[in-house]
Amino acid sequence: MSLSQADLSTDRPQFSHWIRSSNNVTQQFLAIGGQPDFVSLAGGLPAAELYPVEAIKQASARALERWGCAALEYGPVEGFPALRASIAERMSREHRHRFGIENILLTTGAMQGLDLIGKVLIDPGDLIVAQFPTYLGALDAWRTRRPSYRKLDWNLDDPDFLEALPRAKFVYSVPNYSNPTGALVPQNARGGLLSRVIEANTWLVEDDPYLPLQLTGAAGPSILAADAATWPDGQYDGPVVYLGTLSKSVAPGLRVGWIVAEPKLIQLLALAKQCSDLSSSMFSQAVALEFLESGTEAEIIPRTVACYRERRDALCASAKALLSDWFEWEVPPGGMFLWARAKSPGFDTNQLYSFALQEKVAFVPSSVFDPTGALTHALRINFTRNTPDRLEDGVRRLRRAVERYLSSQSSRGV
Amino acid sequence: MSLSQADLSTDRPQFSHWIRSSNNVTQQFLAIGGQPDFVSLAGGLPAAELYPVEAIKQASARALERWGCAALEYGPVEGFPALRASIAERMSREHRHRFGIENILLTTGAMQGLDLIGKVLIDPGDLIVAQFPTYLGALDAWRTRRPSYRKLDWNLDDPDFLEALPRAKFVYSVPNYSNPTGALVPQNARGGLLSRVIEANTWLVEDDPYLPLQLTGAAGPSILAADAATWPDGQYDGPVVYLGTLSKSVAPGLRVGWIVAEPKLIQLLALAKQCSDLSSSMFSQAVALEFLESGTEAEIIPRTVACYRERRDALCASAKALLSDWFEWEVPPGGMFLWARAKSPGFDTNQLYSFALQEKVAFVPSSVFDPTGALTHALRINFTRNTPDRLEDGVRRLRRAVERYLSSQSSRGV
Repeated sequence: MSLSQADLSTDRPQFSHWIRSSNNVTQQFLAIGGQPDFVSLAGGLPAAELYPVEAIKQASARALERWGCAALEYGPVEGFPALRASIAERMSREHRHRFGIENILLTTGAMQGLDLIGKVLIDPGDLIVAQFPTYLGALDAWRTRRPSYRKLDWNLDDPDFLEALPRAKFVYSVPNYSNPTGALVPQNARGGLLSRVIEANTWLVEDDPYLPLQLTGAAGPSILAADAATWPDGQYDGPVVYLGTLSKSVAPGLRVGWIVAEPKLIQLLALAKQCSDLSSSMFSQAVALEFLESGTEAEIIPRTVACYRERRDALCASAKALLSDWFEWEVPPGGMFLWARAKSPGFDTNQLYSFALQEKVAFVPSSVFDPTGALTHALRINFTRNTPDRLEDGVRRLRRAVERYLSSQSSRGV
Repeated sequence: MSLSQADLSTDRPQFSHWIRSSNNVTQQFLAIGGQPDFVSLAGGLPAAELYPVEAIKQASARALERWGCAALEYGPVEGFPALRASIAERMSREHRHRFGIENILLTTGAMQGLDLIGKVLIDPGDLIVAQFPTYLGALDAWRTRRPSYRKLDWNLDDPDFLEALPRAKFVYSVPNYSNPTGALVPQNARGGLLSRVIEANTWLVEDDPYLPLQLTGAAGPSILAADAATWPDGQYDGPVVYLGTLSKSVAPGLRVGWIVAEPKLIQLLALAKQCSDLSSSMFSQAVALEFLESGTEAEIIPRTVACYRERRDALCASAKALLSDWFEWEVPPGGMFLWARAKSPGFDTNQLYSFALQEKVAFVPSSVFDPTGALTHALRINFTRNTPDRLEDGVRRLRRAVERYLSSQSSRGV
């Protein structure tokens, strides 16, 4: 998965240090996704057939009629003003606090939010306490800043954790349907983490892309909502830095995400954004605004949830029939992923991956969700991108890959 | 212009070091641009009334009819494939070499290209040799990587320059209608720089946003074209890293830019892009493709050039009438800016700036184009954004600001 020495050799000046510790798995997965004979269970891609093509077409026409030149203009850096106001209202509804536009920065997907947070807060060696296993995109975004990591394992009274917390630049968590595990962080753990973050006087990055994808039961209040409730009468000035996106409920190709945070941090994140791309596509943002105002999102979400629930159940049924000799998992209550853990301690999903590629099926091995790469016993399987039939086909290929991997192990006398 | 201590004070963990050496001038200028009683001669903004609103509306409809879901999808990281191919053809036409898509990375405006170059090539303390005065956006983009700078003053036989060059991660130049000076780098200087870069075995970043804005005479061949001519039969593998954009010839709000470079560097820039935002807006890129295929750009550019020529001439006439006691300049042969240098050595355009704000006129003081901030004798005046009447009004305000500044100086006995 790592870049080869050949990729990095050059007669010209050397590349930046972080690249040597990098990998190109996301690029590989996106490339595999384009090969029709492959079943890709790897990427975190939505079901493209659910994208609201016709409604976006209408929203585009309306955006240019209503906003004219303003939809084709540079910035503001902070985002298209009317969309920024609309997202402030959305956040106020979802997290039960009166957020103002000064609490909102629009970004090129939530991914850019992670990059900007790294730019504003991380210098080489700085400590991040991150929910473990950790979203690959977050590790990618922060790798360029060369931080150090400590695992957040939710043992919130561990003296080592409490000692480390005040030294951390921030804590990172995906409480709803975590990537990669699909798990919900329980409400009491969210509250416990928040109170310890407040005590340690550090920041808490709450990454919440999967909020709309509640397949069984409800997600429950965000950490942002819990903290915002303690600022009832005023401007939000707390430690939570919340990331949202339209990628899961509308379409990822618009690249509309946002950050909610206290105003001073928003200003510095906007400065980092000015240094990154001056502004996101104003046109995308104006179209997103018109789309949101059309009310179509409220029709799409239930349809998406029903589709993903069916796919999750199909994947779990196939996996139970074909993979449960070697793997165990919890049925994810939401999100996009099944996290299958090998029952045998020596099982190495990095090695399994090569056999999977031969069977023309892709998954994400657990190692990429660990800053040290040492987590090699699990795999992440996406269930949103493929139809139930294709998911079953993919699991069958995965079973063949497992059998070939295990037989290669036994033939080597392991 | 610098951020105040109040902006940076926090009880929570400290912000990254680069922020202390930063400034928020671009944000300030974008904000001033929105105040109707202000004449802003500051930003590098096109004439918004020339944006092809109707043609973009038609292109949006066609993009969704032709590409459907693909226009609303994540990546590829490298960009919407058909636009990437179209830009490869455009670059082949403009720079007289058969560039393949492996030489092209699409970016969120050329600004993101600068950010990605910094991510891939710069570690703290690394040397950049940069055309002086230097584009503010480039200094912004690279500030987060904490480089050191050496001025490129086109004295190409200077032993100190020749000694420094092999240690530089790259050389940065804007040969066409440089920002801020509006000057063309002569062809022999371009050739001389290229040969020294090749000898020193480093990279040469050629930033070329103003290519379409040739107001008097022609720009002449790019450094990329000169180098590509030495690779006649094969893949481009040279040291030039070229940045292009649709922001000046179509509309900046689409945020469509690109990098041309040798394939291995393109791969690493794509990796850095994956770490930055996963991909730019596919929707913007699909719309840009349909717009380019419509041929409308060829109608817009002559109209834009005629408009900007008229505005440049109006600005120069007003400045000659009202500012030539204190400033001198060359008439810029293209681009968007007039660079006015104070005749008196003690003149400080940072101080002039406060008086200008009182007169409700904004310009860009020269200090922000110097990594050390020491260049304080000049100012950059934009002539593309405002009508001739408004430019004249702005220059009149500027004259009043100069008079007030000078009288404040003499009253202080200076």
